[in-house]
Amino acid sequence: MIRVSFQGELGAYGQAAALSFFEDEITTVPCPTFADAIRHVTEGTVDSAIIPVENSIEGSVGESYDLLYSEPLYVIGETYHRIQHCLIGTGSLGDVDTIYSHPQALGQCRRFIQEHKFKTVPTYDTAGSVPIIKSIDRDNVACIASREASAIYGVPVIADQIATNPTNYTRFLVLGNDPLTDRSCNKTSIIFSVRHEPDALYRVMSKFHNAKINLTKIESRPTRTTIWEYNFYVDFEGNEESPEISRALAEIKDHALFFKSLGSYMPASL
Amino acid sequence: MIRVSFQGELGAYGQAAALSFFEDEITTVPCPTFADAIRHVTEGTVDSAIIPVENSIEGSVGESYDLLYSEPLYVIGETYHRIQHCLIGTGSLGDVDTIYSHPQALGQCRRFIQEHKFKTVPTYDTAGSVPIIKSIDRDNVACIASREASAIYGVPVIADQIATNPTNYTRFLVLGNDPLTDRSCNKTSIIFSVRHEPDALYRVMSKFHNAKINLTKIESRPTRTTIWEYNFYVDFEGNEESPEISRALAEIKDHALFFKSLGSYMPASL
Repeated sequence: MIRVSFQGELGAYGQAAALSFFEDEITTVPCPTFADAIRHVTEGTVDSAIIPVENSIEGSVGESYDLLYSEPLYVIGETYHRIQHCLIGTGSLGDVDTIYSHPQALGQCRRFIQEHKFKTVPTYDTAGSVPIIKSIDRDNVACIASREASAIYGVPVIADQIATNPTNYTRFLVLGNDPLTDRSCNKTSIIFSVRHEPDALYRVMSKFHNAKINLTKIESRPTRTTIWEYNFYVDFEGNEESPEISRALAEIKDHALFFKSLGSYMPASL
Repeated sequence: MIRVSFQGELGAYGQAAALSFFEDEITTVPCPTFADAIRHVTEGTVDSAIIPVENSIEGSVGESYDLLYSEPLYVIGETYHRIQHCLIGTGSLGDVDTIYSHPQALGQCRRFIQEHKFKTVPTYDTAGSVPIIKSIDRDNVACIASREASAIYGVPVIADQIATNPTNYTRFLVLGNDPLTDRSCNKTSIIFSVRHEPDALYRVMSKFHNAKINLTKIESRPTRTTIWEYNFYVDFEGNEESPEISRALAEIKDHALFFKSLGSYMPASL
């Protein structure tokens, strides 16, 4: 059976995303950090890791992008997972005055929290907040997590659809030790850095433009070695082995200080 | 006397950045959130707010970029502030087993924390962690904050230079109700969004390229209204009223779904 590591406790959104991505039955392995989830793959104790890279409200997950840069893994798939935050606890809505959850979930439910004048306590994980409030065992203490986490830990949902913006999707990447070789995989992700010159990024973008490659995402992250220098993370349509794309990538490599392909994979749809 | 609001408690890095930016004596006003700091300006109870937009290690501060988009303020200056994290507490290094701080500071001291096998407790603010551990008053509980915060709250520094990467700068923007009109201000920040078409961003970048405008930063953030559509935040060299730049910006406005200038200001140096 395929083994897939994810960050968070049982009931985390990453686990639900893994279960929806793999059509076969899989074993999911909870990990305290993204780095731990990835280490399971490089050490061979699981087949794949699933990590969030972007949320439709909050933007990019910086830690995931840094790991894509530093770790020797390839993208073997992507999936969009709808995030539906619930208020979970033993009391009724009128009893609650304090909410535990991950800071990102607290931020995404800001309007609901302000309306009810709740105090908030940040935790390391959404799903992991459910056993915390279960052990506190007071009707005034609740948490924000998924309906799956409510079911797993046996603590009721008090209110659902509490997010300020109900359209809340997270894009997850599935990572493995080896790139996919199927040429029908028509989405590719690369990382590169360019000299710290005003026109360097424009020149790289011209290569994509001239080869008629459609970019779907550009993200920049500090290089961590040279101050205010950036790595660019670019997703585009097409397979990296196709003639036009492999030619354009060869030219980009010539211009880049650093270049890494994360491989080609099947694009997901919402 | 000029009044400047900042996010955090007394001793926060934002306060120190404000004191170094303004040459005259100023009154600094601590605020619980970035939004509160900005509201003080729009309501006229302070003259300016200072907010962090980018850290050389962690990357961009998403919440600040969202406020630059939504709030009617202008950039009137920028400053780079060096972040030097210290371990602060009443015990000696050997006594400590638990550390309180903001998640970003905990992340920036990850190696030090792992070496000493410390447990971590996330808090809403670095400087605000000092009065928290002072009230807990146990030798095994310490926090990470600035040397200024140690002095303000009278809790000793146990260890300094504990950040994994000692080169750690935060770029702060100073915001006011009115744009600067001094034509010698030769850095400009704008926000725009383009149609969700592969070439739309490239076409805007061509306008900058053709006008020989040097971009110093490109950042993308989800629009929050249309899923996977982005606002682009661009900094460039030059004054927005100069003929070449005002002409290029007029063309970019024609291509953009949304366009907002944050004004021109004097660039800071490290």
